[in-house]
Parts: sequence; C-alpha cells; structure tokens
Amino acid sequence: MMDTSGKHQNSAELQPVSGGVCAPRGFLAAGVHCGIKKENGDLALLYSEVEARAAGVFTTNLVKAAPVLLTWERVRDGRLQAVVVNSGNANACTGPLGMENAKLMARITAQELGLKEELVGVASTGVIGVPLPMNRVEKGIKQAVKELSPDGGTQAAKAIMTTDTCPKEVAVRVEVGGTLVTVGGMAKGSGMIHPNMATMLAFITSDARIDPGLLREVLKEAVERTFNMITVDGDTSTNDMVLMLNNGQAGNPEIKKRTPGYQVFSRAVEYVCTHLAKTIARDGEGATKLLEVVVNGAATTRDAQRAARAVAASNLVKTAVFGADANWGRVMCALGYSGANFNPDKVGVWIGPVKVVEGGRAAQYNEEEATRALQGQDVVLRVDLGVGNGQATAWGCDLSYDYVRINGSYRS
Amino acid sequence: MMDTSGKHQNSAELQPVSGGVCAPRGFLAAGVHCGIKKENGDLALLYSEVEARAAGVFTTNLVKAAPVLLTWERVRDGRLQAVVVNSGNANACTGPLGMENAKLMARITAQELGLKEELVGVASTGVIGVPLPMNRVEKGIKQAVKELSPDGGTQAAKAIMTTDTCPKEVAVRVEVGGTLVTVGGMAKGSGMIHPNMATMLAFITSDARIDPGLLREVLKEAVERTFNMITVDGDTSTNDMVLMLNNGQAGNPEIKKRTPGYQVFSRAVEYVCTHLAKTIARDGEGATKLLEVVVNGAATTRDAQRAARAVAASNLVKTAVFGADANWGRVMCALGYSGANFNPDKVGVWIGPVKVVEGGRAAQYNEEEATRALQGQDVVLRVDLGVGNGQATAWGCDLSYDYVRINGSYRS
Repeated sequence: MMDTSGKHQNSAELQPVSGGVCAPRGFLAAGVHCGIKKENGDLALLYSEVEARAAGVFTTNLVKAAPVLLTWERVRDGRLQAVVVNSGNANACTGPLGMENAKLMARITAQELGLKEELVGVASTGVIGVPLPMNRVEKGIKQAVKELSPDGGTQAAKAIMTTDTCPKEVAVRVEVGGTLVTVGGMAKGSGMIHPNMATMLAFITSDARIDPGLLREVLKEAVERTFNMITVDGDTSTNDMVLMLNNGQAGNPEIKKRTPGYQVFSRAVEYVCTHLAKTIARDGEGATKLLEVVVNGAATTRDAQRAARAVAASNLVKTAVFGADANWGRVMCALGYSGANFNPDKVGVWIGPVKVVEGGRAAQYNEEEATRALQGQDVVLRVDLGVGNGQATAWGCDLSYDYVRINGSYRS
Repeated sequence: MMDTSGKHQNSAELQPVSGGVCAPRGFLAAGVHCGIKKENGDLALLYSEVEARAAGVFTTNLVKAAPVLLTWERVRDGRLQAVVVNSGNANACTGPLGMENAKLMARITAQELGLKEELVGVASTGVIGVPLPMNRVEKGIKQAVKELSPDGGTQAAKAIMTTDTCPKEVAVRVEVGGTLVTVGGMAKGSGMIHPNMATMLAFITSDARIDPGLLREVLKEAVERTFNMITVDGDTSTNDMVLMLNNGQAGNPEIKKRTPGYQVFSRAVEYVCTHLAKTIARDGEGATKLLEVVVNGAATTRDAQRAARAVAASNLVKTAVFGADANWGRVMCALGYSGANFNPDKVGVWIGPVKVVEGGRAAQYNEEEATRALQGQDVVLRVDLGVGNGQATAWGCDLSYDYVRINGSYRS
C-alpha cells in the first residue's frame, strides 16, 4: 500500500469485499461450539473444494505447540485442503499425547471430508499445558463438517477467538491479467503478542493461480511488514501460525515473478495482512487505543523496524498513551535502547501533528495540543531518526488497568 | 554469596552494619530539598574526606543524559572525591545546555568543597527533556555542603528517590587481612528498569585499600550478577549509573588479585549490590511482590541469565504473579523465546516448593498449594533446563493496577 503508483489507481485496484476467508471462490468455512470453552465458538473449519497451494510462517518460540510442529511439517509439501482450529486450549506443553491429539484432529477431519490426512492443517490457541478434551473436539469436527458453508467465514472467525473482543476478518478483490482475484483472511490475537514471532493465528485464502514457489515469498514478505510489526505485551506465543491457502479457482493466468500481476497480488495479500494485524493490535488485551509508530530516516529498514517496535512495545510509552500524557522522553528512551543506530541530537518526534522533539530536545509546542493528539482512539507517533532512508511502521496499543485485570486471572 | 565456604564461615565474614554510604570510614553525606520536586528531598551530596579511587558502570542506552556522559568521562581517571545527585529532573535530551548544567553542578560543588572540578561526579534522575532549574540546584548544593555529616546516609538515600516508596541503603563489614573493611551503598530505582542496562542509580562506598585496576573488575562483576539481573518494566533508562568510591581509610594491606582478601571484599561488594538490587525490584512501580527467578541446568551462565531475565520480565508472568494464578505455561513460553538453548521436554518448573512442570509438561501437583506459593510477598520461581550446569538468578516484581496508575500520569 505504500507504492508509488498513485492513490487513485491504488484504490481502484484494491476493492474491499465481504465474506472473509470465504470471499475467494471455492472456500467453505464453519465455526461451532463443542465445549472446549464454557461458551462461544471454539472449533473452526476451513475447507477448499479443491486441493490448494499452501504456505505458512510459524512461531520462533523454542517451545512449540504440537499443532505448530505438525502443520509446519505438512505445509512443507506446499499443499493443504483443509485447516481445523480450536480455541480454549493451546495443546502446548502436553508431551507425546499432545502430538497424538493434534494428529487425531487432522485424521478425524480428513475422514469426515474424505481427504488424505496430509492435506489437513491443525492450529490451536488457549491455555497451555492441559490435554485436549478429544471427545468434544471430535463431536465439534463432525458438526463443523456438516455446517461448512460459503457464508461460514464470520462463524469461523468467531470460533478462533480467545480474549479477543471481536472477530477479525477481511477480504479484497484485485484484477490480475484481466481476471478478478480475491484474497480473504481471518485472525485471532489479543495477548501474548510480540514482534519476534512468526505471528499469532491467521488464515489467508485466495483463489489466485500462482507459481507455488512464489506463494511462500509473497506471504513471508507480507508477514514481515504486518504481523511481525505488531506487539501487545512483548510475549511471543508458543502457538503462532499464519497459513495461506491458494486454490487457483479464479482461473487467472498463473502469477509469475516480476510481472504486474505479482505486484498487484502482493499488495492484496499485504492489504489483508495489514488489516488483520492492525485489528489485532487495536483489540490488544485491555486496549483502549491503537498505537501506530512510524519511523522514517533510519540508516536501514531493519533499524527502522527495531526503532518502531521498541517504541510500540515500551510499557512506559504504552501507559503514557493510556493516560494521554505527552511524555516524549519515554519515546527517546525506547529509541535509545532499540538497537537502531542514530545520533540523538538529530531526532525529531511528532505526537499526531504536533512536533514535540526537534534536534533531540523539546521543540516549541503547545502541551494541550499534544495531549489532545493522545486522546483519540488512534494515536500516531512519528519519528525521524535523521540518518538515512529506512522506514517502517509498527502497531501496538496502550497499557490499561484492564490488561492487568484480564491477565491476573486468565485461567479462571 | 554463593561460594563453597559454608554457611557458618560466610555469615561470620559478612556483618551487616548501619549507616549506608557513610558506614565506611571517611565518608560524609547530605540530602536536602531545593525545589526541583514539589516536595521531599531532591538533592544529595556524597563526599569522601580524602581523594577516592573510583569506578563506574553506565547505561547502554544510546540516548545518554548529560550527567552520564560527564561522569563517564571523569571516572576514566579512576578518581573522585564527591558526587552530587539530583532527583526530579533527568537532565536528558536537553542539548548543549544540559551538558553546561551538568558541568555547572560539578563546578559549584567543587568550589563549595574546595576541590578540583574533575573530582566531582554528577548524576540525575527524573523527567526527561526539561532544563534543570539551576538557581534551585545551586541553592541546594550550598545547603547540602553545610549539612554534610557522617550520619547523612539516609537523608542522601531519601533525596535521590523519584517514584521509590522507600530509601534504599545497606552496609556490611568484613575482615581483610586482619583489618575491618566496610562497604556501604545507596540506590534509587522503581521504574524504567531492565537488565540490558548498566544499571539505575547506585552509589557504593568503601574504606578498603585496593589495587585501582581491581576495583573496576570487582564492581563490574558484582553489577553483572545483581543490578543487571533485575527488571521492572523492560525499559532501559537514559540515566543509569553505578559509581563506587573507595577511599582506603580502613588501612588494610592493599587488596590484590587471587588473594583471600580479594574474595572476601568481592563478596562484600556483591552483598551490598544484591541487597540494593532486590530492594529496587521489590519497590518496582506498583509492585506488591518480589519475584525471584532461579534458573539451573542451563548450557551456559549466559543462557541461564537470558532465561531468568525473560521469565522475570514477562508481562504475562508478572500479571499471573499479581493475580496468584499458577499459569506455568507462561513461564514455559518465556523460556522458549528467551534465546536460551534447551530441549522443552527436559524442563522442570517449581512455584515455591511446588513442582508444576516435569519433562516439559504438567507435573502432578495440588493447584491450591501452587496458588498459596504465589500469595506471599516473596514469590520464587525455579527452573531446571536440564542441559548443563549454568545457573543465574533474576529479580523482578508483579505487574499491578498501580503500575498503570503511576505511569499513566507520571509528569502531573
């Protein structure tokens, strides 16, 4: 979305549509309640009518949940046709039984759908260390298969929620070589969210035909600039996973590298990922505000990413945003320990439209205006490091009393 | 303190005494209120009757406050005779005026005490980005010089506080080569505290005679195992500093490397640093509990440090400790992203005396006992990574509603 092709062309190219993961042709979904959680949906099923090209990005946490290990293995072949997801239980730190249960989830799903086991991916999210109640899971899968529908996107997005307060889905349509191609997605995530991850749970679908080798590249790049640039609490989860399924049902000429179609398709995927990532940040546990940190003028993109993430992740910045206190010293402090290289005397900082730091020290500004810029639901902090051309954006949220309330008794 | 010489000998060696930084011979101190803050002490002075050997460790934050840059430069020669400290204003991000003011603080102090300017160290702590009110500072320094006293340790410890709820001081006496040697210290720190630092403000005094080259080594080692192993909120400050002044007034035979005296003296310094570090962690902003994380069985000491600090710094662990929720999955999660190398299936975790994780998954334990172990004012989490012999201890605190309250409106 930050291309040079001009706003008009850009918005004409990307047409938001409804339907979430079911917006692309040939995808069905369902979300049901089977009793893993006390209430609300807790089992989701995503299904492509034909075998799909698949790519995935997974948590970098050394402690990986069983479904992460299983799906990681299965996505290596680059093919999936269904994904089964439960919420309420992470199936992490559950030993050999955990891996058996993850495989069993896939096997039951495959049997009910008449697929090969290897074409089913599995994801889980919820409490760590508790065995899955497999009787309920089995009942849930059978019910979900019955309820699969091209209108099931929202139900599926609801069934993967944990502490999320709203379902997260999006879809967008673009023209590739004269053919309309659709990219959809859903995600969950509210806590245990931090940039050093692969990412939290997100499922992206598309009906585009694309060179299978390219799919992974497109997804990885999008994740790097979107899901990996959000932070809620600095904790990288054991269960993070982004999966993308591409079933080719749009019938477009196959997308190849260094073609206009590739550019357009990449933008569509990044649009979907950005939307989901920002929605996760805004729905961070206890959050009252979305925090966007834009860093320009860094020596490298990597430095810009480091700087943006450090500011967005700082508890002191987050509490100041919550309290609408224009304490820009905390931004300078976070930049200083971010690992980015810069000269403190060259730094500029803006809170919304108000320039609060110039040349590394207080600019002439009106305190009330700065406070006002912190009072909306969307707070933008902009930093110019004054070194080079590296730029990056990170998203986070404020740190409120409710974060403490939610996490002081998560399991009860 | 973790030596192999046995408990009896150990406790006989280290004799706690009162007096803080003034406990060693030849040190005077004062703490006054000069109006930098609305109330309470805000200017402290520490003075040795004779020139002292000095060593320092400073923040690793790229954005360094003026007094940090100045004192860093001055301590290179290894000599100081006085340190002037103000609270309420960090003198950071204040441009060239900030450096002028830091130098002026030293100059005024030197003139009043009849010392060379180069023998005065300066430290500041408080709000970033606001110029120091030098008229008040000058008045404060003059008053502090008048009030210098061998009983001034506690007043000085009070005058360096910001959001601290209690002054932090300690002193201990040991026998070195038949002579009694005393090490004292004071510190401040409650927020903006995280292991990647040099450290927050701490001032250590001693009357020992010691090889000047060794002093730096003793201090660096002690800081590594104490101040660098505490975390409150993950933010490394712009103003961190530990200074040690050693005036040789005890008259002991000079301490040299690889002698019993060196061991004893190092232990005394580490005792003082450990006490101050733990007191800072316990007094973390909004904290209701001290969290001690002990990691054993790591591949290396460095891995043990990484693992211990990641657990102590995790917002999710901290909120669970606040809510007395035995959610050990969050400990496993933090270990997993700590960067330490281990096999998740070999990990054991204890909450107080209760083993909650065995072989990487839930042990047989009583939930009520685990909850009870989280309800005291001191919570100990113990981890065995099951790989090697590396061990480390980190200290932190819980994350409470009051952390958010304090930091949502720090400047008002």
